Amino acid sequence: MPLWKIYHPVDAFTAEDKEKLAGRITGLYARLPKFYVGVIFQEVPQHSFFIGGRPVDNFVRIWVDHIARTLPSAEAKERWIKISDEAIAPFIRDRGYNWEFHIDETPFDLWSIQGLRPPPANSEHEKRWIMENRPTPYVTGTP
Amino acid sequence: MPLWKIYHPVDAFTAEDKEKLAGRITGLYARLPKFYVGVIFQEVPQHSFFIGGRPVDNFVRIWVDHIARTLPSAEAKERWIKISDEAIAPFIRDRGYNWEFHIDETPFDLWSIQGLRPPPANSEHEKRWIMENRPTPYVTGTP
Amino acid sequence: MPLWKIYHPVDAFTAEDKEKLAGRITGLYARLPKFYVGVIFQEVPQHSFFIGGRPVDNFVRIWVDHIARTLPSAEAKERWIKISDEAIAPFIRDRGYNWEFHIDETPFDLWSIQGLRPPPANSEHEKRWIMENRPTPYVTGTP
Repeated sequence: MPLWKIYHPVDAFTAEDKEKLAGRITGLYARLPKFYVGVIFQEVPQHSFFIGGRPVDNFVRIWVDHIARTLPSAEAKERWIKISDEAIAPFIRDRGYNWEFHIDETPFDLWSIQGLRPPPANSEHEKRWIMENRPTPYVTGTP
Repeated sequence: MPLWKIYHPVDAFTAEDKEKLAGRITGLYARLPKFYVGVIFQEVPQHSFFIGGRPVDNFVRIWVDHIARTLPSAEAKERWIKISDEAIAPFIRDRGYNWEFHIDETPFDLWSIQGLRPPPANSEHEKRWIMENRPTPYVTGTP
Repeated sequence: MPLWKIYHPVDAFTAEDKEKLAGRITGLYARLPKFYVGVIFQEVPQHSFFIGGRPVDNFVRIWVDHIARTLPSAEAKERWIKISDEAIAPFIRDRGYNWEFHIDETPFDLWSIQGLRPPPANSEHEKRWIMENRPTPYVTGTP
């Protein structure tokens, strides 16, 4: 969590662009272990993306799954959408691409990293994962 | 909303096929702004798609996220599945492909187009978006 | 159901590897018709996958949608995660890849195979689909 899938035109982003954009996205999730944040870029060839039935070649479509946390209120959701749009703007809006994104929230209990189930939100174990920035075993039920 | 991802064999569809199929899919959502409807085609290379553990090379697998609306009843869902199957049949069933699709419904509040949160269902703002077929700013809370 | 999407480094798996891994995944769902189990492998080119804002080239990221069944309890979920990790380990963990997976559960009523809505869980019709390993018409409402 989260997993961002970014569908974009061929050659829209350099390797450096992608790393910077992934870094900005990772920055959104400052309360989580950094290694929770996955971003996959995928080029969409010409004549393979349609909006309203018409082919588009300047569109960036982002699909996100949130797993570790759910946004608890209308205000939190509104704020999240706003800061997400700000995070991606320099590489998308400011370059003249059209864009759209949507987020789904999927079950915390159906998630595994390196064979380990991530520790509960805000637990001592999660704090350790944040500090060490890698998944390490822990005993379920201990604080 | 909606986002359709269509996984298909290499060279299954020409650019013209894809545009026609995307047009038929867009036609399903006549009550929404046309530009809400996104369709991404993705070729799956040989030996990369398995059904029941066996490689398949004539299978079209469709995954859909609905965001703007949820289907309110068993009857509405049944009808939607039926008209979706009819919409895609000329390019899939009638060409001898096997196929499967499934739809998820994701949160309306976690969705953004061009930095704007889409207006509520059936609002005056949505009617304007339908008429103009593009997202334009509006003041939340006004009718 | 289920649909497994496996994002992996270029050339991580041979065709034979993929078939064996898809077979192990199919084996997890022994109570379902085999043809319910779809597995799509997708290569992620270099500089296109980031974890924690850093490019990774040895990471396998799996995203799963469950449709036919929902896992009914915390115990069932924990067990499922465990056996899933065991099923994929020989081709991922044991080869030195890092990995992560997550599962979403999507609506049974929004799913169609070959133009047919799959029969209810554990129904006589489902038993026939298991035995024949293909979707065949049935009359809704009959046992």
